[in-house]
Parts: sequence; structure tokens; C-alpha cells
Amino acid sequence: MAKYSIGIDYGTLSGRAVIVNLETGEEVASAVLEYPHAVMEEQLPDGTKLGHDWALEHPQDYLDVLGYTIPEVLKQSGVSAEDVVGVGLDVTACTILPVKKDGTPLCFLDKFKSQPHAYIKLWKHHAAQDKADALNKIAEERGEKWLKRYGGKISSEWVFPKVWQMVDEAPEVYDETDYIIEATDWLVWQLTGVQTRNSCTAGYKAIWHSEDGYPSKEFFKALHPKLENVIEDKFNCPITPLGKKAGEITEAAAKLTGLKVGTAVAVGNVDAHVCVPAVKIDGPGKMLAIMGTSTCHMLLGTEEKEVKGMCGVVKDGILPGLYGYEAGQSCVGDHLGWFTKYCVPESYMQAAREQGVNIHKYIREKASKLRPGQSGLLALDWWNGNRSVLVDVDLTGMILGMTLTTKPEEIYRALMEATAFGTRKIIETFRKYGVPVNEYYAAGGIPEKDEMTMQIYADVINMPIRVSGSPQGPALGSAIFGAVAAGKARGGFDTIGEASAVMGKLKDKVFTPIAENVEAYNKLYAEYEKLHEYFGEGGNDVMKRLKAMKK
Amino acid sequence: MAKYSIGIDYGTLSGRAVIVNLETGEEVASAVLEYPHAVMEEQLPDGTKLGHDWALEHPQDYLDVLGYTIPEVLKQSGVSAEDVVGVGLDVTACTILPVKKDGTPLCFLDKFKSQPHAYIKLWKHHAAQDKADALNKIAEERGEKWLKRYGGKISSEWVFPKVWQMVDEAPEVYDETDYIIEATDWLVWQLTGVQTRNSCTAGYKAIWHSEDGYPSKEFFKALHPKLENVIEDKFNCPITPLGKKAGEITEAAAKLTGLKVGTAVAVGNVDAHVCVPAVKIDGPGKMLAIMGTSTCHMLLGTEEKEVKGMCGVVKDGILPGLYGYEAGQSCVGDHLGWFTKYCVPESYMQAAREQGVNIHKYIREKASKLRPGQSGLLALDWWNGNRSVLVDVDLTGMILGMTLTTKPEEIYRALMEATAFGTRKIIETFRKYGVPVNEYYAAGGIPEKDEMTMQIYADVINMPIRVSGSPQGPALGSAIFGAVAAGKARGGFDTIGEASAVMGKLKDKVFTPIAENVEAYNKLYAEYEKLHEYFGEGGNDVMKRLKAMKK
Repeated sequence: MAKYSIGIDYGTLSGRAVIVNLETGEEVASAVLEYPHAVMEEQLPDGTKLGHDWALEHPQDYLDVLGYTIPEVLKQSGVSAEDVVGVGLDVTACTILPVKKDGTPLCFLDKFKSQPHAYIKLWKHHAAQDKADALNKIAEERGEKWLKRYGGKISSEWVFPKVWQMVDEAPEVYDETDYIIEATDWLVWQLTGVQTRNSCTAGYKAIWHSEDGYPSKEFFKALHPKLENVIEDKFNCPITPLGKKAGEITEAAAKLTGLKVGTAVAVGNVDAHVCVPAVKIDGPGKMLAIMGTSTCHMLLGTEEKEVKGMCGVVKDGILPGLYGYEAGQSCVGDHLGWFTKYCVPESYMQAAREQGVNIHKYIREKASKLRPGQSGLLALDWWNGNRSVLVDVDLTGMILGMTLTTKPEEIYRALMEATAFGTRKIIETFRKYGVPVNEYYAAGGIPEKDEMTMQIYADVINMPIRVSGSPQGPALGSAIFGAVAAGKARGGFDTIGEASAVMGKLKDKVFTPIAENVEAYNKLYAEYEKLHEYFGEGGNDVMKRLKAMKK
Repeated sequence: MAKYSIGIDYGTLSGRAVIVNLETGEEVASAVLEYPHAVMEEQLPDGTKLGHDWALEHPQDYLDVLGYTIPEVLKQSGVSAEDVVGVGLDVTACTILPVKKDGTPLCFLDKFKSQPHAYIKLWKHHAAQDKADALNKIAEERGEKWLKRYGGKISSEWVFPKVWQMVDEAPEVYDETDYIIEATDWLVWQLTGVQTRNSCTAGYKAIWHSEDGYPSKEFFKALHPKLENVIEDKFNCPITPLGKKAGEITEAAAKLTGLKVGTAVAVGNVDAHVCVPAVKIDGPGKMLAIMGTSTCHMLLGTEEKEVKGMCGVVKDGILPGLYGYEAGQSCVGDHLGWFTKYCVPESYMQAAREQGVNIHKYIREKASKLRPGQSGLLALDWWNGNRSVLVDVDLTGMILGMTLTTKPEEIYRALMEATAFGTRKIIETFRKYGVPVNEYYAAGGIPEKDEMTMQIYADVINMPIRVSGSPQGPALGSAIFGAVAAGKARGGFDTIGEASAVMGKLKDKVFTPIAENVEAYNKLYAEYEKLHEYFGEGGNDVMKRLKAMKK
């Protein structure tokens, strides 16, 4: 009798479960729940207004995903819960919430219903930017050695800027909080009844190191007196490496999900990182890019190197036993979305409708006919700042080369090319600092539907690109971790490599560099690099001065 | 009994006549004829294909303007031809054609009907760029001292690149040509029966100087052996200062126009230059900007100074007795036209239609609510190259500061602000080289309908702006020159100053700088200047390298 594993992937707007056959790797069924409250950016459910740059989610939505999608995939597939040996899950990160000792989110308490700080702060909650700036300044002044592991800067999206904002704006919520926890670890706790904390988010988002632990009390005290004991007060739980079993389904969780009591549950994971084994990556030198509105790059290495401007390096942060490197581009599909919303003429929209295709596809059709360099355009892909390698949210977008005959499809292509140049910059930076990048894999929305972009990327980075074979890579990845949590004895796998070999998937089609395009893009990349340095590294800080003038 | 003058203005797409009362200055009637052949950019009337960047017009269209608009304004106004004492006309420049000894355009001859070089080469005929480049190189190598008068570069739009192209591509047309002449002088010839050549186009477009004359035979020979005697062969006619009478209406011209034989006709003029007295400018230090798709700046000075990057300085080139300076911006309304054609979303077009306003007005309404610096955007207005002060057609547009919340109206405003910064750069360059600019006047399509832009300009240049009181400034200006050609004895005026005082018009509304905006724009202009230097003066020639890659 075949055994199965279930993976659940929590994205920004919805949660998706997939059930996978552990003999064949087949993804037998899947189910999605859009979060009823979506992202709360304007107000709480009771109408309480939120400030500028806030982004919250509701923990009840996350529980509803468990309660709807797991029974649904069991029903659809006809698989008996008896045959589900493991469950894994992943969430966006850093996505954190304050909870009581028993795991109850503070926003579930009547007294905190109207308190924004009692809800889940989503990864893209950007209202703690001033705290991040101050934190970086203090860390630099104190010469905190962990700063280099994060490319020299802590992001406002990460744990401690968000916690500091809470201490500052809502000390009463902070005082009543027993734990501040990543949503992924909180959900695993809801399934298993025991709190665990995973090495991935601890390392990448909470400045934890396998040997050095968290930053010192002195550092936290320098941020705010109340934060001196933040680790023992709110993060008091050991860290468990990825790939381990966190616990087993409890009776309450069995009732919620329809799974059997005792089913193995993997340690919590993160949506991007969990994809790595889903594309059969099993070791160093193979970069995975999850390409969607933004791009997240994952890379494994055998040594801990300090690489300028990367998001972090964490032991056991992606696969157990290896150093996991993370980098990112904050604006990939995002500025093409912006472009189609604001910069596409009516005639193109009409033509796309007449042809019955979406506007992206319509423009890509035109853009794909251009050869590299034909438009004369060059852009810097910083509409949302630069995450790697400059780690600077105050940088902005730039495009040059326009003439009176410049067409929308030329701009569209230039914006996409700029993201490819940004990726090449990241790859070259890794190499420069001694972390090899020999192969390139892509997953996410863009590789799934946009062949033009994949060819551009192959030509720009001059490497073949392999694409995830599953459209639901993170959920598949979580199912892989679920199968490993179960172990071979219970019908799963003992190692991630074994699970990945059966369950991981790649498409047959490989995007191979075209020599002529590579040559043209080498020239364009040289121009990109020069502008990257001029505008990004102090040659001319005009973008920052203009941004300061906006306020 | 009141006397009248008629001015005829030949634009790029149509010709317009206006009849003006010389006692009151009232513009009594006007009439327009769209050129039946419009601009020929693709093919000749018989289907002969044109090359890339060609732009021709048909001389018959220009004659048709005389034959239609003059009788029409007489009819509309009820003024008797007896009471019309003078006629003046202006044409775009450099707009030239080859003619026979009797003034017959070569394209009127059957044998040359299918020969593109036999037609009028319009100012924006850009197919002689390679000739302009070569000419500039040779002039520089030979140390031609006249080069500095033109800001160091001769434009491909001017006479000799166009003539050289003809010699090169159609020597048989060149050989059969008796005169190569500006359309404005050719039209005056058609009215008066005598050939004259005006000091304005001779000076600005044909490298003629009141003391030094044309460039030397040696120079022309260095361009092409056949050009050695180009001046005596094809330009053999003395130069007459602006403000003089060229001659009187002939019998043939009387038959064509309905005017009386003997009516005074002014020396030919150019559309931009002729506007100067129409806005009551009578002396040095007062800059007039004709703002439309592109902008032309006219300024008078008492001395001949060499000003870097200007289009030229010509004695009697604008008003008799003074040095006329010309500068220009090749892309003003043009890139806003580009923007509304290619970059405005469907939702804006729909909303504009619902409100019953054109899209420019709709976007301006939104853009006018932004304060300086609020968008965080900054652009370089080089969509069509830079005419002054860089004199470089290979520069291209640039915009930076975009984020995911950047709106179309913010980009629109940034594009317009960039043109204002370009104007300030021109003003400051004049001042730097010793030519005062103390007052600023505007005419043309933009000041006529766009108050937001006029306020932006006033704030950026920190000077009050006065606006032409007539929507048909060039035609009014030509009528002024017509009245002066007639002279006081015949009911006109003896000087342009006297005519201008009666006939010139300014609106009551003056756009006055707002201190707070001036301060913000000073900051933005400092950023503009820095980028202007970086991209325009050798800091980074990326725009040129990208343009070279396009080919």
C-alpha cells in the first residue's frame, strides 16, 4: 500500500496543501484557501486604522487553512489518513506573532482585538524601517560581528525591528506576551502541542547562530532597556535543525485536520527555502531562484563565508549539515505589475482583450521579438529598493535610453533584463567571496509561464537554467520534509536527499544560453554594473536625496 | 480709414494668414490651410519611397497657402485690398529647396517628379546626420573660427549637410539647380518677382556672417570637390537684414492673392524669430521661448559673444541692429505626446473621456496638485537628443526615482520639470558667457493652454513669465514686419519698435515665482545639473554606447 505525505505552503494571500505519493512522487491532489482577511494594510477587522506601511495577517486564517485544505486533499485523493505518514509546512518569513504561554495569539484575547500589535506582522510589514536603521547604526557602532553574516545590514522585515516597534508603540502588548514566534513554528506547535523553533528562520531572521547563539543582552539593552532580556523572555525555546521531526499530530489537531493522531510533523520551514529539495538540489554550488513578484535566491556551501550584501548565511538554514546562503531581489514581477497597471496604453489593453490573452502575455509576445540591445534601453531594477547586494531600501528605479520611438514592449523587456542583471550581480558577488555557483534552477510564477524571461536570464548569466517541474514547489518541498520527519521505518525517508530523488521534479526543457545574446548582454551588463556602482555605491546619492525630499 | 497688414506663418503642417488693424492692433481675421501633401516621410506623391529619417514638403502646398488664406482673410474681414499696406511671411527653417533661375522648383519639372532631392527638405529632415558629423569633424580639424558661433556644432538640420547629401546622392539634381534657397526667401520671390535672402536664415542656418561672409572655398572643397564653388553657384544673392522691404506685389502675385500690385512685402523671416516683436520685445536681455513640441529661445544682445552650445549668434538675425542669439530644446511637448501615446493607462483614458477633457488636461489636473519634489522623480529631457547646451543628438531620455507607487501624473510632471531645468541651464549658460537674461516671455501652444507648466517654469527659472497675448504669434509677427516694410508714409510704421508697440500683445496674467517652490526646485536643479554633466559631458557615455548598439 502506497504511503503519502502532505505539504502545506502558506503564501502571502492563501494557503495550499498538496498530497504526494511517496513511491511515485506524484502530486495526487491539492487544495487552496484564500485567507478570509487577506493582508490587512488599512484596518483591523473591527475597523481600527493601521499606520503607513503596516501589513498584518490574522492567525485564524492560518488555522482555517489547516482545517480546510487537509481534509480537502484527503477527500479529493481518496487517500486514507492512515496512509499519510508525515506532514510538513512552510510560511512566509519573517512573519511573526505574539502568543500566550499556551500558544494563544494575543489578538484572540478580547482586550487586544483592537490592538494592531497583537496580530501577525507579515514579512512585508515595513513600518519598522526607522527601528531597522537605528538597530544597524547601533550594531555597527558596537562592532557586532554577526552583522557581516547578514551582508552588513538587518532588514526592517526581520524579527527585532518588528519587536522593537512593539515595545515602543505597545509596551502593554509586549508585557503580556509570553512568546514572540514565527508563524511557521506557531503552526507546527498547533499541530504537535509542543513548541519548536526551526534553524532557518532563527538564523536568517532572528540573528541566531549555531555556535554563537543570539546577540548579547548588552546589544539588546542598547536598543531599548525593555529589550535587555528579550531572548529569555520571549524566545525561550531551543532551535531545531531543518529536516527533524518536531512532534506528532495531537488529538486536537487530528480533529481539526482529519489526520491520524501520531502522524509525524516536520520542523517548520520557509516558503522559499523549502523549495530547494523540490527541484532535486542536494548540495553546494546549485543556486535556486524563486522568481515571482520578488526573487529569493538559495545556495548551499560547505564553509561559512561572509559575502557582501547577502541576506544571510545559516548553518542548517536550508538543508541540514550545510551552510545555507540567501540573497534576494525585492522587485522582479512587481515592477512589471506596476508597469502594466500604470504604463500600458489603452490600445494594447484593447488588442490583448481582442486576442483573449492577458496583458503580460500580449506585451511579452512583442518584447520577445526584440534582440538584446535593440531598444537602446537600460534600467536599474530598484523600484522596491535593492535587497542584494546593496541592501538599501532607499534606492529607486531608473531607466535611460528613451527616444520618441521607444515602445512599451521595449520598456517592459528592459525592466525584466534589469532583474536578470541584478541576478548576475548576485551570482558574481557570491563567486567573488568564494562561494561557487555552478548551476542555476528556477521555480515560482515566472519560470512557470514566461519563457522569454527564462531565456533572457540564461543569456545574461550564461548558464543553462533548469525549471521546477511542479507548479507548487513550496508545498511539494514541505511534503518532502514531512516524509523525512516520518522516516523510512514509517514509510517515509531517512534523508532529504532520498526523498528529493523520488519526490523532486524538474521540467525536461532546459533554457540554454545563445552565444550571440550572451555577447550582447555582456556589453549591457558592463553598463549596468557601472550605473549600479554610480547610483548604488556613493557615486551619486541622488536617489536617496530625492527620497528624502518626498517626505 | 484704417490700414492693415497681413502676416503669413508657414508651420510644419499648415499655413496661416492673419490680417491686423494698424491703428488698434486688432487681429481682424485669420485663415488656415493644412498642406494637402502634409509632411512626406514615407513616399513622394507618385509613390517613390523615401529613406529613413527623410522629411519633405511640396512647394505647391506653400503656393496654395498664399492663394487660399490671403483672399480668405480679406473676405472674412471685409477689408479692401486697397487698405492692405504690407505683407510679411515666415516659414520653418532650415527648410530649403532647389530651384531654376526663374524660381521654378526642380520638382515641378517632369524629369524630377520622382526625385526626392528635387523637393523641399523640411527642417526636420534628419537623413543628413552623417554629413553633419563629417562636416563638424572637418571644420574642427581645419580650425574654422565660425564653428564657435554655433556652439561648436553645425546641426544636421541646417543648409550644408542637406546640400552635401544632395551632391552625394543626386549630383544630377545638384547640377541642374540654379539656386538652393530657404522656402521663406523663395516665397517672397514668388510675391515680388525679385530674389532676396534674409539675414536670419543666412546667419543661423547657412553659416553666413555679416562681416566674414560664408565659409571659404577651401572648406567647402574639403567637404566635396563639387562643393568648392557652392556659394557662387547656388547661393549667389546678397543678404538683406530683417526689417527691410524685399519688394512689392507683382501682377502675377496680385492675381494669386487678391492683393494690389505694389503692396510692400517684407524680407522673409523664420517662424520663431518673427515672434519677438509680437510679444513687445524691443531690446537686449529679454528672452522669448516659443514652446511647443520643441522650444526655441530667442535673445538679443549688444555684443557678439561666443556662448557654449547655443544654436547661433547672428547680427540682424532677429531685430535689425542687434545680435540675435538662438538656443533650443528639441523635446518639450514632444515627449509628453510620446508619454500620452504609450504610457498612459486605460483607466486614465476612460476617465478623461467621461469628463470630456483631453488626456493632457486630465493628467495635468492631477499633476498640478503635486508639490515640487513630492514625486521623488527626476528626468533628463533628452528623448530627442539635446540641442542646447550639449548639441548632441545621440543623448537619450532618462528618468529615476520610480517606486511601485509612482503614478503616471508624477512621471508626466517630472518630464515637464526636466524641460524647465533644461531651460534654466540655457539661461545660466547665456549669463555665464556674458549675455544677460533679465526677463522671460513665452509664446506657442504650451503657454496658451497649460498654466501648470508656466508656473513650474517661473518657479524653476525664478523669473516672472509674461505670455504672448496672441495665439498666432508668428503670423502677427510677420504682419508687424509687413507693416514696417510699408513704412509710415504708406500707413505702416518706420521701425519695428513702433509697430510692436501698437501690434504686439501680452496677456494680463503674469506667472510669478513662488518662493517655497523656488527653493525646492533649486535643490532639484542641482541634482539635474549633476546628472546633466555625468551623462552629457563625458562622465558616462552610456547613452551613446547604447544607441550605437541599437544599429
